[in-house]
Amino acid sequence: MNHTLISAYTNEKIKEYRKLLASRKARRESGLFPLEGLRLCADAAASGFPIETLFLTEAAEEKGGERLELLLKAARRIYTVSSAVAEKMADTVSPQGVFCTVRMETEKPFEVHTGGRYVVLDRVQNPQNLGAIARTAEALGVDALLAFGGCDRYNPKALRASMGSLLRLPVFETEDIAETLRTLGKTVLTFAAVPDVSAQSVSDVNFLRGAAAVIGNEGEGVSEEVLQAVQCRVTIPMRGNAESLNAAAAAIILMWEMTK
Amino acid sequence: MNHTLISAYTNEKIKEYRKLLASRKARRESGLFPLEGLRLCADAAASGFPIETLFLTEAAEEKGGERLELLLKAARRIYTVSSAVAEKMADTVSPQGVFCTVRMETEKPFEVHTGGRYVVLDRVQNPQNLGAIARTAEALGVDALLAFGGCDRYNPKALRASMGSLLRLPVFETEDIAETLRTLGKTVLTFAAVPDVSAQSVSDVNFLRGAAAVIGNEGEGVSEEVLQAVQCRVTIPMRGNAESLNAAAAAIILMWEMTK
Repeated sequence: MNHTLISAYTNEKIKEYRKLLASRKARRESGLFPLEGLRLCADAAASGFPIETLFLTEAAEEKGGERLELLLKAARRIYTVSSAVAEKMADTVSPQGVFCTVRMETEKPFEVHTGGRYVVLDRVQNPQNLGAIARTAEALGVDALLAFGGCDRYNPKALRASMGSLLRLPVFETEDIAETLRTLGKTVLTFAAVPDVSAQSVSDVNFLRGAAAVIGNEGEGVSEEVLQAVQCRVTIPMRGNAESLNAAAAAIILMWEMTK
Repeated sequence: MNHTLISAYTNEKIKEYRKLLASRKARRESGLFPLEGLRLCADAAASGFPIETLFLTEAAEEKGGERLELLLKAARRIYTVSSAVAEKMADTVSPQGVFCTVRMETEKPFEVHTGGRYVVLDRVQNPQNLGAIARTAEALGVDALLAFGGCDRYNPKALRASMGSLLRLPVFETEDIAETLRTLGKTVLTFAAVPDVSAQSVSDVNFLRGAAAVIGNEGEGVSEEVLQAVQCRVTIPMRGNAESLNAAAAAIILMWEMTK
């Protein structure tokens, strides 16, 4: 197929793509986010996200495949980019020459269900942690993520670390975490992990009516406001050096206990 | 203090440092590994690793602090490096101007104890995964790691991802994983996780006499040889999309179940 060729990285479309890559503000204002790599881009299309623009190197187009077919069909606009331009767009070590700008979801109202399993993120900052938490949440069957502040769900590094789970899982943003926890608490058990050995062990909690776990900020843990709003404080009893348990590992243990 | 100043990155000492950073072979042949950052370097010294060479920028030396005191005392040779040279040595995004070459441990014989908790790594390749597994192993009180192939314990990215846990935990290398598992199996329960829903759930296994969990390669899982050598195959039952559970997350769940 013949698409318009972009061979200058000063092209407006490329400048826009790179702005979306670098700036959360640019993403919010445009309602678009950037994605790189055939698999992630195809995941977004398969999850129903509108693909506004697809940028492809000739090599990537020649390689073809089922995922590419899906993307070519889904994309509103398609450009061929030279490999020099693709290198300027790339945010990964071995770029595949496939890039998209994708339209964000319109926010749906969140609904909590009896027996549901939820993860509430209290200012989780690190994109790798957000990605690892989302990926494991999807694997273990968590029903939705609710994010308060921290790294945004459209952060390119978080999306990549999640292997697309952030596109497939229902993700909601909240501006009032205490209110969100009170709403959740009417239907499921809300809890947060604290480094307090006198708290109940997470192994002993009954999660049968459903649960919402709060994962705290990497440096500060969960806020005082959260501790006031949850129904239950739990602890992860450890035999080793507790300082070493990072936010993602703690989150994985909490999610495992509440979903198993 | 006055140390010899290195201001050319063609200096032999700097070339040697960078070779250790890039090449496992160079590390093996010299018996040295490189470390970057005040905390990691001080961790190595505190764990009893001999510090062969310490490279410091003037800014880092002026900053001082307890950890630096420890390092200055421990180091056999100290050089001041210009900030331009430090930039060439750095493997991190925000370098602190502190670098060491550290002598590897001499291999001690491994001993298994009743009630001990061990993690056996079957060709785990990804340095981030090795780091995350070691970090969580230390947090949960795992007694030792036994590594067969894969990413080596002195890989700079793995060391950094482990936040120093790879320096503090006992780590042993094995060239015969089946033999290692048979030895472990005389004293503790040896097991591997498989994606087979008919296997016993990891939640139902009795780990009281101690246990050794095998963590498989990211792409291939555990080898047939391992499956023949372990006493028990377990599964991690999931309600979600099992494909999304990565090696580190699975390892965290197995370690949690066997240590809690």
